[in-house]
Amino acid sequence: MPLITDTAHAFLPYPDVPVLHAGTGPLAGLCFGVKDLFDVAGYPTGGGQPLVLAMSGIKTKTAPAVQQLLDAGAKFVGKTVTDELAFSMNGNNAHFGAPINGAAPERISGGSSSGSASAVSNNLCDFALGSDTGGSVRAPANHCGLYGIRPTHGRISLAGVLDLAPSLDTCGYFARDVDTFARVSSVLLGEDPVAMPTNIRLLKPLDIWSMLSEDVAVAQAKPLARTEAALGKAVEMRVILDNPDSLYWHFRHIQGHEAWTVHGPWIERFCPPLGPGIAERFAWSKTVTDEQFAEASVYRKRFKKHLADVLGADGVLVMPTAADIAPLKSDGGEALESYRNRSIQMLCLAGLSGFAQISLPLGQRLGAPLGLSLLGPAGSDMRLVRLAQQIANTA
Amino acid sequence: MPLITDTAHAFLPYPDVPVLHAGTGPLAGLCFGVKDLFDVAGYPTGGGQPLVLAMSGIKTKTAPAVQQLLDAGAKFVGKTVTDELAFSMNGNNAHFGAPINGAAPERISGGSSSGSASAVSNNLCDFALGSDTGGSVRAPANHCGLYGIRPTHGRISLAGVLDLAPSLDTCGYFARDVDTFARVSSVLLGEDPVAMPTNIRLLKPLDIWSMLSEDVAVAQAKPLARTEAALGKAVEMRVILDNPDSLYWHFRHIQGHEAWTVHGPWIERFCPPLGPGIAERFAWSKTVTDEQFAEASVYRKRFKKHLADVLGADGVLVMPTAADIAPLKSDGGEALESYRNRSIQMLCLAGLSGFAQISLPLGQRLGAPLGLSLLGPAGSDMRLVRLAQQIANTA
Repeated sequence: MPLITDTAHAFLPYPDVPVLHAGTGPLAGLCFGVKDLFDVAGYPTGGGQPLVLAMSGIKTKTAPAVQQLLDAGAKFVGKTVTDELAFSMNGNNAHFGAPINGAAPERISGGSSSGSASAVSNNLCDFALGSDTGGSVRAPANHCGLYGIRPTHGRISLAGVLDLAPSLDTCGYFARDVDTFARVSSVLLGEDPVAMPTNIRLLKPLDIWSMLSEDVAVAQAKPLARTEAALGKAVEMRVILDNPDSLYWHFRHIQGHEAWTVHGPWIERFCPPLGPGIAERFAWSKTVTDEQFAEASVYRKRFKKHLADVLGADGVLVMPTAADIAPLKSDGGEALESYRNRSIQMLCLAGLSGFAQISLPLGQRLGAPLGLSLLGPAGSDMRLVRLAQQIANTA
Repeated sequence: MPLITDTAHAFLPYPDVPVLHAGTGPLAGLCFGVKDLFDVAGYPTGGGQPLVLAMSGIKTKTAPAVQQLLDAGAKFVGKTVTDELAFSMNGNNAHFGAPINGAAPERISGGSSSGSASAVSNNLCDFALGSDTGGSVRAPANHCGLYGIRPTHGRISLAGVLDLAPSLDTCGYFARDVDTFARVSSVLLGEDPVAMPTNIRLLKPLDIWSMLSEDVAVAQAKPLARTEAALGKAVEMRVILDNPDSLYWHFRHIQGHEAWTVHGPWIERFCPPLGPGIAERFAWSKTVTDEQFAEASVYRKRFKKHLADVLGADGVLVMPTAADIAPLKSDGGEALESYRNRSIQMLCLAGLSGFAQISLPLGQRLGAPLGLSLLGPAGSDMRLVRLAQQIANTA
């Protein structure tokens, strides 16, 4: 059993099967956890769903993203708990438990990459792989005080990884400090295909910022100031196409339609008992029509072009990662659902466009971490990482 | 995946790993399922609990009880769903689903050997292994219209099987027809250590029968008459020592204390999310004191001696298996808990004494099966099987 001292419930108690890694390399000396959506040879892949775990068997191949890390000298220390089928942001799996938020133990860790964020925030490993479809890396990064990335769609391989909504799914990761984050990024991202210009334009989308409550806006003032100190004064602008509801619903229609396409057949075949929220979300996903999906796909194209035009080659949005700090564990399902929906309105910019976004743990409110995000054009991932370093190095 | 046509949700969808069996033998031509508490080489053992499944790894040894069946020529066709940690009689696992009762699909299959009873009652296999601690074979046999046995404690090996409460746990099994039941019994039981006399005394414990509601008593009249036609008029008597509450609570104190001893440490270590009823039952089990357990152990000794005296070498109790036919799936938690508690008062006679009991599918009520039981002295198992055959062959 890996990491027997894990009292954070971040790791799954799979029997400890050794996984080879290179003796030297850019990540030598670092250890990492892997969300239980990624195949690792010698382990099952459970996806946070007991029947999926039962069906999995022991995998014989390791997902390329994991293999890249091993080849770079990082040590695999275990598979981390994921929200059920990665279709939640609450970090509370009805079957496998609720990994503890190392930065705010009374608050949820967020999901669906809950165990990975928990493991890193509890110092159980140096970094961890997650996946981000609608915010599953960025939200837990916000909640647990971590650096977390949703890369440009397609930038990091998702071969050997369970799908949720393939046109939205991405492979992301977490680290506590920006230098570890940058080391891992170099390995998984390599250099950007087209380097951004030396001078970037920092953009502040007022229509996103105006979604914040006053308390949260106040808490985001310092992180924003620090970012501007490092990257220059942000230009105020607007980014939403049509209205926030369009963004939100088109995103959800794409996610729901694809999630049902991926999981519907076996869910109908096996009738697995799905946890609270997950069952309802799949039931809703089933109702998304082909027409809604087609309409959403048209909107997505428009939005992607719109955001590409807005950003150009040198634009970087600076924006809140989520609606607020992590909800309390004691919050009811309705409060969590409301938090999720408000956050998706921010998180879906990167989701719909497929562009890269990094959450930086720059803020605090009520003693809990609060993330600020940089969102850049397609392929700007590594540059965003370097901007994050620049900000971190600005006192 | 075994038995892809299993729409009863009786089997776990583990990848199909071939399990060798003898080409000939007394069970040649029969196929069987195995409750997912028993180790089968090539498969994990999940115990109906996702973290137990995660911890299991792939077993390399097969439990001797399963091996005996394979050696006798029976074909293994899959592992069956169990209630979570076998600590329920509801047949509704919050993580792995609710196997369908083949005899009364709108009613629960009963548990904890829910998948085994479901598989046999849905004709997915000829017989199936289960375990019975407090009624986990007898109750589902009652509910699904099957022959089911709780053997004398220790009679069939439980090596390689997950414990619930070791001093109460037994290995039982189900079959649809009495001849298959007898064939399996010959293999797993062999001959009784001491043969019962040719003439047995059928005993009707009025204090148990008086627990039935009038409707159920009416429905049990025919099965009782048929049994008396085969085995002779039953002598009315009383069997409970002190009062029904003593039986019930001492049984529950032993079961709870042992269940917590077995599972408490890892439950406290991993904080697994336990399903409805299971969590409460373990929480209660934790509160059972050493004094209560000691007192219950003294009572159990007294009761065992008392029942041994009552039965002598030739006594066989004829009694209802459970309080009624299976509850409806739509019944709420409270109704199920009440049903369970009323049934335990009957089921705990064999539990506390460790004596053998067979449930026969002789009755019906509202179109659903109703079981009648024979309970004999320690070691009378095979004789009870032959008495069941005798009854079945009496029109």
